[in-house]
Amino acid sequence: MLSIRKIVLIGAGNVGFHLGKRLYKKGFEIIQVFSRNKDKAKFLSEKIQAESITDFSKINTNADLYIIAVSDHAIDEVAQKLKANGIDNQLVVHTSGATASTVLKPYFAHYGIFYPLQTFRINSKPDFKILPICIDAPNKKDLKKLKKLAKKNCSDVQEINDQERANLHVAAVFVNNFSNHFYSIAEDILGQKNLSLKLLMPLIKETARNIERSSPKDMQTGPAIRNDESTVKKHLQFLEKHPEYRTLYLAISKSINAKFGNLK
Amino acid sequence: MLSIRKIVLIGAGNVGFHLGKRLYKKGFEIIQVFSRNKDKAKFLSEKIQAESITDFSKINTNADLYIIAVSDHAIDEVAQKLKANGIDNQLVVHTSGATASTVLKPYFAHYGIFYPLQTFRINSKPDFKILPICIDAPNKKDLKKLKKLAKKNCSDVQEINDQERANLHVAAVFVNNFSNHFYSIAEDILGQKNLSLKLLMPLIKETARNIERSSPKDMQTGPAIRNDESTVKKHLQFLEKHPEYRTLYLAISKSINAKFGNLK
Repeated sequence: MLSIRKIVLIGAGNVGFHLGKRLYKKGFEIIQVFSRNKDKAKFLSEKIQAESITDFSKINTNADLYIIAVSDHAIDEVAQKLKANGIDNQLVVHTSGATASTVLKPYFAHYGIFYPLQTFRINSKPDFKILPICIDAPNKKDLKKLKKLAKKNCSDVQEINDQERANLHVAAVFVNNFSNHFYSIAEDILGQKNLSLKLLMPLIKETARNIERSSPKDMQTGPAIRNDESTVKKHLQFLEKHPEYRTLYLAISKSINAKFGNLK
Repeated sequence: MLSIRKIVLIGAGNVGFHLGKRLYKKGFEIIQVFSRNKDKAKFLSEKIQAESITDFSKINTNADLYIIAVSDHAIDEVAQKLKANGIDNQLVVHTSGATASTVLKPYFAHYGIFYPLQTFRINSKPDFKILPICIDAPNKKDLKKLKKLAKKNCSDVQEINDQERANLHVAAVFVNNFSNHFYSIAEDILGQKNLSLKLLMPLIKETARNIERSSPKDMQTGPAIRNDESTVKKHLQFLEKHPEYRTLYLAISKSINAKFGNLK
């Protein structure tokens, strides 16, 4: 089995940017970075000694691996274009948590998943040492190649199939996107009294840290879980000036404790 | 101005337990621990060399401070009983985020707030070095005493009035209770595929860590914020077997992005 050495990266957004930098740092050769956005392609490719391209006809057909790190809705179109430009028998993966690996099946004999499970923002450096990379591929040899690649880039490699990844991605939306939205709501509510969200940082960190030791089910605190109807009502009254937050507060309190199902 | 030395602690639940231990460790004399629950009173008082009482008529009237660390709905009743048993001119505080300080006003000339802003569980040791203690008292001298006491027990003392504390407590419910509930939902969704919540720990920690550097508004990622209707619909379909989670998913996605207001 040959190892992966030369890589073409399609996409220079949040995931592509950090994955490209990591692979480069770990000694892999990123021969090209493709992005529809010329500046983004250039910005990343300059950092990782890659060629920057914005045209699929320029794609190098001699790489060992093609990583599609684009928006979910664009994966199919990118796969088509790769195929149309001579990528055929090479290994092609995408990095999405929300999209089945089989989206690639109509186009490639060798395909799979290379999904780093983390929230990526270009301006914020992720810690690859602790994040899991989830891999999958129907072909055993391809899977082995991806495993070897993942192991060089992180310490937690997980073989996760499409069905499992569907669960993982929805769960990730709850713990990341939705928790972060609540941090925003908290910031807004505090800002009305000129209080800083920093006041809540120890609480936020402890909330996250607690579940390393116990199931979150055993760590639930607050008015809803302790049947404290008077505080829940007080909070709902407080939130009357924020109908949108009030709706969320009520829905989640009901979900935590069916007791509050009759409140409106 | 005299300092606080002798303290009577009313309540040996999650907050009372840890606050009592902390005050004791920092050299304060907890002369009594009151709890309706004899075992709880004894369990704590043995650790901090206090007398354990379950009867208000036994309350020591010579303490410098009475800390009411009971459920919100019981604060008023406890205040009445303290007053009825000779506590009158001494300083009395409660530890609640959700209850106004003025609940104590009808009973005591000297009253205030001593609110450690953290989630407390008896089995989990909090880090007082980093948590904020929020204090308040209408009398300047009382406030100074509380400030001095708080400073000996934590490094972040905040003067927070009742109106500010109302905002702070609702915000705390969002970032702690509600985020923790989402960790539970994630655990449930992952459990269906025998996947562990540990897989999401790096993501959960990064989500919390990110807001130390940036406003959560600037850190929002995920399908809702990027207008990814196809992924939102896919997730809603996935959640059809969990109507309760589906309701929350939809409500929060709408709150993140009004675009999804028409989805059902």
